[in-house]
Amino acid sequence: MKHAYLANLSIDKSDPGPLHRQLFLKLRDNILQNVIKAGTRLPSTRLLAEDLGVSRNTVLSAFDQLMAEGYLEARVGAGTYVSTQIPDELLGTNSSSEKPNPKARKIKLSRQAEALRPTGPAKPYHQGPFSPGRPELDQFPFEIWARLLAKHWRKPEPDYLSGNPVGGATALREALAEHLAQTRAVNCEPDQVIVLSGSQQAIHLVIKAFAETGDPILMEDPGFPGIRNSIIAAGANPIAVPVDDQGFNLEAAKSLAPKARLACLSPSHQYPLGPTMSLQRRLEILHWAGENDRFVLEDDYDSEYRYSGRPLSSLQGLDTEDRVLYVGSMSKVMFSGLRVGYLVVPKDLVDVFLALRRDIDGHSPAVAEAALAEFISEGHLATHIRKMRILYEKRQKVLISELRAKCGDFLSVDEQECGMHLIAFLRPEIEDKKVEALARDQGLMLRALSAFYEGPEKKNALIIGFAGTHEKQMPRLVGRLAQILETCAAHMQT
Amino acid sequence: MKHAYLANLSIDKSDPGPLHRQLFLKLRDNILQNVIKAGTRLPSTRLLAEDLGVSRNTVLSAFDQLMAEGYLEARVGAGTYVSTQIPDELLGTNSSSEKPNPKARKIKLSRQAEALRPTGPAKPYHQGPFSPGRPELDQFPFEIWARLLAKHWRKPEPDYLSGNPVGGATALREALAEHLAQTRAVNCEPDQVIVLSGSQQAIHLVIKAFAETGDPILMEDPGFPGIRNSIIAAGANPIAVPVDDQGFNLEAAKSLAPKARLACLSPSHQYPLGPTMSLQRRLEILHWAGENDRFVLEDDYDSEYRYSGRPLSSLQGLDTEDRVLYVGSMSKVMFSGLRVGYLVVPKDLVDVFLALRRDIDGHSPAVAEAALAEFISEGHLATHIRKMRILYEKRQKVLISELRAKCGDFLSVDEQECGMHLIAFLRPEIEDKKVEALARDQGLMLRALSAFYEGPEKKNALIIGFAGTHEKQMPRLVGRLAQILETCAAHMQT
Repeated sequence: MKHAYLANLSIDKSDPGPLHRQLFLKLRDNILQNVIKAGTRLPSTRLLAEDLGVSRNTVLSAFDQLMAEGYLEARVGAGTYVSTQIPDELLGTNSSSEKPNPKARKIKLSRQAEALRPTGPAKPYHQGPFSPGRPELDQFPFEIWARLLAKHWRKPEPDYLSGNPVGGATALREALAEHLAQTRAVNCEPDQVIVLSGSQQAIHLVIKAFAETGDPILMEDPGFPGIRNSIIAAGANPIAVPVDDQGFNLEAAKSLAPKARLACLSPSHQYPLGPTMSLQRRLEILHWAGENDRFVLEDDYDSEYRYSGRPLSSLQGLDTEDRVLYVGSMSKVMFSGLRVGYLVVPKDLVDVFLALRRDIDGHSPAVAEAALAEFISEGHLATHIRKMRILYEKRQKVLISELRAKCGDFLSVDEQECGMHLIAFLRPEIEDKKVEALARDQGLMLRALSAFYEGPEKKNALIIGFAGTHEKQMPRLVGRLAQILETCAAHMQT
Repeated sequence: MKHAYLANLSIDKSDPGPLHRQLFLKLRDNILQNVIKAGTRLPSTRLLAEDLGVSRNTVLSAFDQLMAEGYLEARVGAGTYVSTQIPDELLGTNSSSEKPNPKARKIKLSRQAEALRPTGPAKPYHQGPFSPGRPELDQFPFEIWARLLAKHWRKPEPDYLSGNPVGGATALREALAEHLAQTRAVNCEPDQVIVLSGSQQAIHLVIKAFAETGDPILMEDPGFPGIRNSIIAAGANPIAVPVDDQGFNLEAAKSLAPKARLACLSPSHQYPLGPTMSLQRRLEILHWAGENDRFVLEDDYDSEYRYSGRPLSSLQGLDTEDRVLYVGSMSKVMFSGLRVGYLVVPKDLVDVFLALRRDIDGHSPAVAEAALAEFISEGHLATHIRKMRILYEKRQKVLISELRAKCGDFLSVDEQECGMHLIAFLRPEIEDKKVEALARDQGLMLRALSAFYEGPEKKNALIIGFAGTHEKQMPRLVGRLAQILETCAAHMQT
């Protein structure tokens, strides 16, 4: 005989989860929905098992859980009852298995979260041919990397498994300090290097350390959108400073925001335009920073790839007043999925940055970092960079000659001394954003330069990555681009 | 003949770096220090090489770099000169190799950074015997983990090497959603799971999403210091709410901060005291949250280890109004050096949290996450948890019997149904913080409970971790603790 109050209870044996869990959730729902009332005596486990066609153990198990969580109570010698401890006014609303469809509701978020709230559904961003900043992945020595990782994980350093290293594995901080001294003339001790999950985290922390709501923060125009977003998320005010042929225009910055205390720059290879900041401008900026408790974020994102001469020295290495916070990343020399970037800070700011980092991220994934240190100190990184420099140089040449041959009517392009992308300036009637949209539809992930500007003086050009695109594919891909440009140009004339 | 202006120039051949770099830095310094004046003609590379006793290539290389960076200029047919482009007023201050000792300087930081600025030098925190929350590391299957990692890294998914997955590898989001449904009755789709670098990052993001400067944020008292720090770092106001035998005291919370919109709770196993929140209290809290655009952070940090009965269900699974943000972590079931935690958020908050996460951390280290997904779906995690549950249960028993036998005069201790630490209440005259300090000197990393309180009603007890301490060592370690307690008690009486 089925008990009336359990009439709507049945077990779906096709459900892949354990039956006791299904029964637990269903009984819980019935109780919370007030379908089975407080104080009701439940049938015996034997009877209920028979009714439902499940084993008695299944019912016992579900009852145990309901008892432990306070839905049922046992009265000695008298069976099992629905708890009378749950106030009636709390029942009838909660049902775990049948949630209502998520209503469009107005949620009050913090100003910071509002600033970042996406306007539409997030569009997944896939890198592809011509993506700027995309390195060649097929030639990375993943075998070596996998072997080193496995080696370090098989017998991990116990200290690296628990909460110790906020700033990163010691071996990696040492390897990076040495690497940066050799390749970028960065002047630091290993404990000034703070290993992070990428340059975005470094940028976030620097802005957070110095920016108060409403503070003006200087950035280059055009510039890296990740910097702008971080400034806005911090509630601060991004001041877009034009870039001239010497780099960041300090005089313009001084008149736009005389009180600004932080400037975010890419002196080695201005992103995305490309010029290298002149020596005079560098010295002026260090002088400006040294004067009045000001700081400079130096974003040194791809200087390892220089095709004429040696990579230029960092601004940090020229700084005698401890005013530069140097940001670097493994995303370009290895790949961004590694999630390793770093920040080099003046000695008296190390503890502050470790505390800021601990707040957002506990500590560092030190075992993998130790493997990376070995990858660097065994010379694998240097070998890979050397190989890639030769490869990327070739790819740039092929891309430029293809662009000039097939798209020369629509754009003009100069060789870049450095980096992984070039800038192709468009004829004024061809809109770069339009080209970007059409190219994207065809899988070409080049970017419109004008979208990187904040101010009204936008240049109309395409940012075309060459590093991660095979030279053999370039004739075909550039052919496709030529068609797109033709379409845009024809559309403009009609 | 030595040129006068290069008299102080010499090469140190014992320096391990390349000689051309040394020469470059030294000449650069001389120019920046105005020792070699603008417009000065430098000796020929052949002459200088002879003078310094280095190869001519070394000098050529240094000159090239100095030329490229704007320190030197070549005049056709007339040799190499120090650049006249550098304004005099910028010279004489910058010297890269001889930095002054870092002066004690006053740096203006943001309010957030000031709030986190350490008061003294950071003391490294090593976990050790009795550390609460420290899992057993010797029995973790590192071989399997290393093998899976190597497998995924040898042939990584291309999308996981570049900027795509902000919320984590798809396979891991699916594996976690399934795991949480099975073990914690969490009710979610995989895309509501956002994989993060640990529970601290989850806490940080939740507070950041809802807290404005000065906003009251409810937290348990005693409670997890990482929550309090994040609230303070956000400029918000932590409201310490007492915990009674049913858990977080909602009535007290309502009167302390009627306008609070976010409560940070650990309902399954209150941290650090241990009680499980009653069903009635859970329903009351969900009702409170549902009423008025309020949210609950559920910190479910160690519920997997339950020694009597099955783990209790999560608050999230009871929530029909999408008011709970569920925080979990792999730090206890694996180890914290893995750096994997996660946040389960209501569907209509997913995009906001992805945007917040992107700002602090770009995207997710997806290759390692895919390996973790396989570790979970192949059943290795469940096997490890099962083994550890048996082991930790035994360790708790040994620890309790040792404590009662050797320290019974000074403290009293009850069995915990759940978790990795127990609470040993001290006789009132023995101060827990004093015991902590003395124990730490002897390598025993237990914690003083009173330090976890914000309000004036502090309980005097020790938090003693048992999970990561070998049962065979416990007699010796507890013996040492007994001596410390005796010392403290004796000291009090005199």
